[in-house]
Amino acid sequence: MYEGAVQDLIDELGRLPGVGPKSAQRIAFHVLNADAADVARLAQALTQAKEKVKFCETCGNIAEGAQCRICADPRRSTAVLCVVEEAKDVVAIERTREFRGRYHVLGGAINPIEGIGPDDLRIRELMTRLADGAVEEVILATDPNIEGEATATYLARMLRGMGVPVSRLASGLPVGGDLEYADEITLGRAFEGRRRIEA
Amino acid sequence: MYEGAVQDLIDELGRLPGVGPKSAQRIAFHVLNADAADVARLAQALTQAKEKVKFCETCGNIAEGAQCRICADPRRSTAVLCVVEEAKDVVAIERTREFRGRYHVLGGAINPIEGIGPDDLRIRELMTRLADGAVEEVILATDPNIEGEATATYLARMLRGMGVPVSRLASGLPVGGDLEYADEITLGRAFEGRRRIEA
Repeated sequence: MYEGAVQDLIDELGRLPGVGPKSAQRIAFHVLNADAADVARLAQALTQAKEKVKFCETCGNIAEGAQCRICADPRRSTAVLCVVEEAKDVVAIERTREFRGRYHVLGGAINPIEGIGPDDLRIRELMTRLADGAVEEVILATDPNIEGEATATYLARMLRGMGVPVSRLASGLPVGGDLEYADEITLGRAFEGRRRIEA
Repeated sequence: MYEGAVQDLIDELGRLPGVGPKSAQRIAFHVLNADAADVARLAQALTQAKEKVKFCETCGNIAEGAQCRICADPRRSTAVLCVVEEAKDVVAIERTREFRGRYHVLGGAINPIEGIGPDDLRIRELMTRLADGAVEEVILATDPNIEGEATATYLARMLRGMGVPVSRLASGLPVGGDLEYADEITLGRAFEGRRRIEA
């Protein structure tokens, strides 16, 4: 439909997650009208990120060296290990400023439909990290969906014999939400996990 | 929040239209996990589009040479000229396969709030194109919103003395839509523009 170079750009943009044909076209036209310097900066950011960013040898988080910022930080406790699916979950948890331990990034969740089994995740690496007994608690922070729950159940079973306490993030009503809009599973979990208030 | 190169990429992506912070993060992680060749192709498509794509000297549409594909096509009638706001409107109209004339791309619409006046649009170029009397009809196909209507009204007044018939695309109910969901202005226009059915 478009001249070669524009169509190429629309096609490439359309391959990005969450970018449909309309958005791809909108972004392409934005690029055509943008300053050449801005476009060059975006192109370079893409190449640089791909070149520079590696994955942390210890935890699997994104890192610019062999270790990510969290594993390289001696102030972070090695006694608590939080297991997450993806590097972006690390960022989400870091934003809460609640957690001062370290992470282990699995690289996904068990998902038989997409053919992702335990061997495709960094579970062996997790076991190796736990072998020296320095970790005193493992927090399973996989997503609260079917795949995440299955992964947490699998990991809990694997960790049973290791003598380390394993916990799972609480499920319940989202803060600021409306009770009537909560789905029945979430509401069920909120009842199940109810806490006594000290009056 | 992220290591340098990842944060740079998220920042650059977040400047694109319709890409919020969440999408920018999602795309950045997609890039980190994608094949290096795919990322290089996207980066190159950006640079290439910006380098190669120019604007047609005649009509203002996007072009890889001095003339766009439509202006360079001798089969397209020079008797009908369709005036649009943006190059993407050309593509939208081309998709209908209804129009075999040529285009004139204004480069926007009159918008006093954003400080865009008639002098910022390619109106002088339009007048020059009409000067030789070869064009027998001008179709004003600016957007059916306030700015587009204002631009069409302005152009209609400018063209009044030139002896060339000027038309405007029909407003009315969108095909496949539901009458009850049409806004009152569209419905009003549909009444105004009603056509007699030959029974």
